Amino acid sequence: MIEYGDWIISASGYKTHVPQHLESLFCQSNGYIGSRAAFLQDGALPYERCTYMAGGFDYISPGITDMVNLPDPFHFMLTITGSAPGRDDGSYSEFVQRLNLKNGLYTRDTVWTDGQGRQTAIKISRFISMANRHTAALRVELTTLNHNGEAELLLGLDSGILNLPVHDDQTLVNDNTVKMLEAAVGTSGHGACALTVRSRTGRLTIDMRCRVTHSDGSQEDGSAADCPARRLKIRLRQNQTVTVEKLISVNDPDGPPSGDFAALLEESGRAWALRWENADIEVEADDPAIQTALRYNLFQLMQSRPFGDPNVSIGARGLTHSRYKGCCFWDTDIFIQPFFLYTDPAAARDLVRFRLNTLPDARENAKALNLNGARYPWMCAVGGREQCHTWDIGRSEVHITADVAYAVDQYMRVTGDGSVSGDAARLLAETARYWASRFSYDAQKDIYNLLFVKGPDEYCGVSSNNVYTVLLARHNLRLALKAAENGCDVSPAEREKWEEIIEKSYVGYDAGRDLYLQDDDFLRLEPFDFGNKAGDTPVYRKLDYDRLQRYRVLKQADLVLLMLLLPGLFTDSQKQAIWDCYEPITLHDSSLSCGIHAWAAAALDKRDKAVSYFKKSLFLDLENIMDNTGAEGIHIAALGASWQAAVFGFAGLSADGPGEPSLSPKLPEGWRAMRFVFHSKGKRYRAEITTEGCSVHEYKEERQ
Amino acid sequence: MIEYGDWIISASGYKTHVPQHLESLFCQSNGYIGSRAAFLQDGALPYERCTYMAGGFDYISPGITDMVNLPDPFHFMLTITGSAPGRDDGSYSEFVQRLNLKNGLYTRDTVWTDGQGRQTAIKISRFISMANRHTAALRVELTTLNHNGEAELLLGLDSGILNLPVHDDQTLVNDNTVKMLEAAVGTSGHGACALTVRSRTGRLTIDMRCRVTHSDGSQEDGSAADCPARRLKIRLRQNQTVTVEKLISVNDPDGPPSGDFAALLEESGRAWALRWENADIEVEADDPAIQTALRYNLFQLMQSRPFGDPNVSIGARGLTHSRYKGCCFWDTDIFIQPFFLYTDPAAARDLVRFRLNTLPDARENAKALNLNGARYPWMCAVGGREQCHTWDIGRSEVHITADVAYAVDQYMRVTGDGSVSGDAARLLAETARYWASRFSYDAQKDIYNLLFVKGPDEYCGVSSNNVYTVLLARHNLRLALKAAENGCDVSPAEREKWEEIIEKSYVGYDAGRDLYLQDDDFLRLEPFDFGNKAGDTPVYRKLDYDRLQRYRVLKQADLVLLMLLLPGLFTDSQKQAIWDCYEPITLHDSSLSCGIHAWAAAALDKRDKAVSYFKKSLFLDLENIMDNTGAEGIHIAALGASWQAAVFGFAGLSADGPGEPSLSPKLPEGWRAMRFVFHSKGKRYRAEITTEGCSVHEYKEERQ
Repeated sequence: MIEYGDWIISASGYKTHVPQHLESLFCQSNGYIGSRAAFLQDGALPYERCTYMAGGFDYISPGITDMVNLPDPFHFMLTITGSAPGRDDGSYSEFVQRLNLKNGLYTRDTVWTDGQGRQTAIKISRFISMANRHTAALRVELTTLNHNGEAELLLGLDSGILNLPVHDDQTLVNDNTVKMLEAAVGTSGHGACALTVRSRTGRLTIDMRCRVTHSDGSQEDGSAADCPARRLKIRLRQNQTVTVEKLISVNDPDGPPSGDFAALLEESGRAWALRWENADIEVEADDPAIQTALRYNLFQLMQSRPFGDPNVSIGARGLTHSRYKGCCFWDTDIFIQPFFLYTDPAAARDLVRFRLNTLPDARENAKALNLNGARYPWMCAVGGREQCHTWDIGRSEVHITADVAYAVDQYMRVTGDGSVSGDAARLLAETARYWASRFSYDAQKDIYNLLFVKGPDEYCGVSSNNVYTVLLARHNLRLALKAAENGCDVSPAEREKWEEIIEKSYVGYDAGRDLYLQDDDFLRLEPFDFGNKAGDTPVYRKLDYDRLQRYRVLKQADLVLLMLLLPGLFTDSQKQAIWDCYEPITLHDSSLSCGIHAWAAAALDKRDKAVSYFKKSLFLDLENIMDNTGAEGIHIAALGASWQAAVFGFAGLSADGPGEPSLSPKLPEGWRAMRFVFHSKGKRYRAEITTEGCSVHEYKEERQ
Repeated sequence: MIEYGDWIISASGYKTHVPQHLESLFCQSNGYIGSRAAFLQDGALPYERCTYMAGGFDYISPGITDMVNLPDPFHFMLTITGSAPGRDDGSYSEFVQRLNLKNGLYTRDTVWTDGQGRQTAIKISRFISMANRHTAALRVELTTLNHNGEAELLLGLDSGILNLPVHDDQTLVNDNTVKMLEAAVGTSGHGACALTVRSRTGRLTIDMRCRVTHSDGSQEDGSAADCPARRLKIRLRQNQTVTVEKLISVNDPDGPPSGDFAALLEESGRAWALRWENADIEVEADDPAIQTALRYNLFQLMQSRPFGDPNVSIGARGLTHSRYKGCCFWDTDIFIQPFFLYTDPAAARDLVRFRLNTLPDARENAKALNLNGARYPWMCAVGGREQCHTWDIGRSEVHITADVAYAVDQYMRVTGDGSVSGDAARLLAETARYWASRFSYDAQKDIYNLLFVKGPDEYCGVSSNNVYTVLLARHNLRLALKAAENGCDVSPAEREKWEEIIEKSYVGYDAGRDLYLQDDDFLRLEPFDFGNKAGDTPVYRKLDYDRLQRYRVLKQADLVLLMLLLPGLFTDSQKQAIWDCYEPITLHDSSLSCGIHAWAAAALDKRDKAVSYFKKSLFLDLENIMDNTGAEGIHIAALGASWQAAVFGFAGLSADGPGEPSLSPKLPEGWRAMRFVFHSKGKRYRAEITTEGCSVHEYKEERQ
């Protein structure tokens, strides 16, 4: 369905509107505002036309937020000589959507033939500026092909938009919409519209404005309740193109930008070019789709980057969907941050600062559970208070706290940025205090147990001593001890306790197989009948989680991930044993899994497996492999895992140690070359891998 | 606060309206309709005036029901010479509420002095008929004491009533009301009102009518939207009493009853007398409040009895509150049913039939969790589909299925009723099939584990091999094997599997202490600081369940209950070890706990402990010991546990074995005598225990 051109992905064909894979795929964002490619013209419903703002949450019930679906800035309704394209009698003889990955421009070229055979070429273009976070623009170009006629085009700012909160539990469907936008005030006049709207509890005020220009015709007020709008009347003459532009601002005190669509697009394109300069990965592969798909992954990662704001983070679906109430998970720290760490350290710094800034909230989370120190939330939206309210996940997925500590340390190690070290030391000490109160001492056996936890693998039940969590918690404690040496305020008794937990925390291990055991229940789970897995449909759609938790089957990488995050903890033989035990029983029903398995396979030099997992991760959204890209948005963490598979796996980049960056390439069959830029400890490097060999060298040249 | 008279409980004083303990305490019901003692006159809000109907559920979202709060049948608003008692300037110089346990009559005698010093005695009486399930009545008596004046009395059927759904999770508060009543049609005329109202999805239609008579004055239409009403204008002459009666019918095609308040009350009183004849327990104790409190417990049990309908059961709060969405739990099978089993076998039969009738739903529950056989729901409302949607409870409290099997068997053993044995055998086989698929075979150890379960003690986490559940599941399997011998359709392979699970299911046991261990995690839990428990406030209000699950502390009886249900499984030494281990670490933060501990203490001849636990159970609602009787209603299971403590514990009744019923009395200090009637295997017995000795003899005489 998707065609992979040079820097372009495109799709042909028009479908009656349903929540669609392409609406997610062509979603545009600059990290401040994001908008799905769903148009009123096509019949998209008020909760299907989705525009979001980073940090744009409001409460739907006490303590529980949702990401507010903003007014539709790309609102338009077109009729040509009385016929509404896509809605009235007639058909599209051409309908091609394109996304230009180089500059973020979305276009759709269509030809509408109405019931009387009148043909009009309609081209829609839109972008959200990467140069000015408040700016977006829409362009409509109309060319009648076999008639003279009249077009009426309504262009407004539509606040008649609804939220469709999605239940945390992915097996439940909710179809109750919620009105989050209230008290709209709109004006329309002098070729412009303005809308001010407050969210439900007043937490957000959105000031949206637009300026409408056109190369022909007249305009008048076309406002409706909740939708200030301009109504254009345009005379269409055969083969003459009329261009209409709508230049939009969101929360910009200066209002809509000056300049026209083309000038603003060029400005945005220059910002994109700077990003690409640092983030692009060039791949020469037999299958050119790999290059385009990889760039699409990078493109969506860059779109998700918060626009210079350390008070917001990246939700599991970025700004492409409000799935999981727009919340941020460990996805950011473990899957997404590495991309920014190596390609855009300033962005990584903002992500780390988000965690550092929300330390007080993490303390509150710990206190609410009667624990010491700081507990990072499984899900967060506004600040860092826990937003997950399902027991088995919200209370048990405690590894997030160690994930955050790990990511903060990785940031300092890779960037060498010492400016956050004071705040980081406080975070490490407070998270260590959390662990010290979370482990349970068993006096009889003189061990520490980590009771009632779940690791990354969500098909396991709430168990104890999940090894991923215990070993990462130990890492967290070690980092805290090291920070304490550098002067953080930690008592000797605390240090002693931390050391004792590092020494005496229980980790399941089968000496006969030299194998770490995922958790205390792993060995007594029932064998899984892999006939239950048909195609790519996740098994949780067929089997209840209650049934799944008693099977020896994994949803996603657990120890396989850990051995990549903390490779020094495992011998080669142990890594091999982990792969041999867990990989065959992992279903990859989480989008987080395939990219990590690609990286692990490459690290273990299993190149066929590596490339097969890599492709699943790379095309996960593009080819709608999970069958939920339409209904849930782009899986941002999977993009980050694809990047890690490419850079850490295939290129074998190692740049987080004390020495110089190095490569250990394991290019897949059919890849002739791979080139990319990365940052490490304040320097910028260029890596090149060919069939001849590889090189890393510092690279100072930068486009002005 | 409560005074305990002979067959009367009373309370003095008027408080500005808040959800109150007394509104629950004086709740009236006949098992078909129940109504809390909250009046519009006192300012009770639309969700505080609560009237419910057995089985009166409707959906609030797909698959999720709430118990519908019906129109207020006892609606009235009174003004006397322009002053509304309890609302306007003035005060009550007298305000006494009384509940007559003998005939269910509620009265409140008040004297209102308005701002000008005008005094009026106002007496309100009401009852819900135990003779005719559709009938209720209200009487208002007015006597001016120092003036002549004019009263206006509005008497209607108010459908402007709301639901206040309460979250399953008792630590969460919900204050979002829901309108469950729709499309009301009301009429008023000729001294009568009628109201027809549908619930939200049309599942219920309520036809409520009333007839209003009065000894003086005139009446006219006083209807408001949603509330057909009669407005009475009454001349009041000093020291002359005017009586107004409102005779109410609910879903009676014949409409309001003929006769007057007094005649209908007498008829209801006769029905009550028949009930008391079988259910009363006479106690001669130093403290006479014990007798009245015990009768109050029996009274509320009888009020909760479904009115001859095997398609409804008894919710955790009966018809006294919609807490837990009105749902029915294991409370009914284990705590409530025994009372009916021995005092009202027909009612017990209906409760058992409810479980037999919902076997198809239990099959669906098992199927939804990818299991075989039938799984009874932790919570049910309409039929037997699972209504509990919290993971840790709904998926893990699987003992309910064994509880149901146990109760069905107990019914047959105690009553000797063979007519249900075919259906019972099917239930036993299907529940056994459930267990066979729910246990996980561990080939390495050749044992069966019951993974991811919780027993009755809700302060433990989701653990494995909870002994209460495993041993009761074995009992269920044994019952199924026995039923299979009698011809139920069970394959030899199934029998073999069931026998293997009985033999090889794992049960934690500490040989050194001859002690059964509650579950796999029990020994590694942290010691609990009992300083955390202050007074009667449940610890879960202070500590999160996540923190509690890692402490070695119990909310309620777990193994202590099991050793009473299946005493033959434990030696005396084992019972003593269970008591010694678990009783000191049980907080009794569940209302189910104290009565069971009283019974256990009596069985182990620890009379001081027994009487202390008994009093806590007996006065639990009367003295609002849990501090939630007002906000949540009467704890029906605690009433049943009180009865078991008295009859099984203090009297030591044993009547479920093959022999003749016997007593093994352990009367508390200060109890001189105890007398009660019970049924066993179709016969009726009278038990008498005095300080001289005890006797059981058959007892045929029955009042006509």
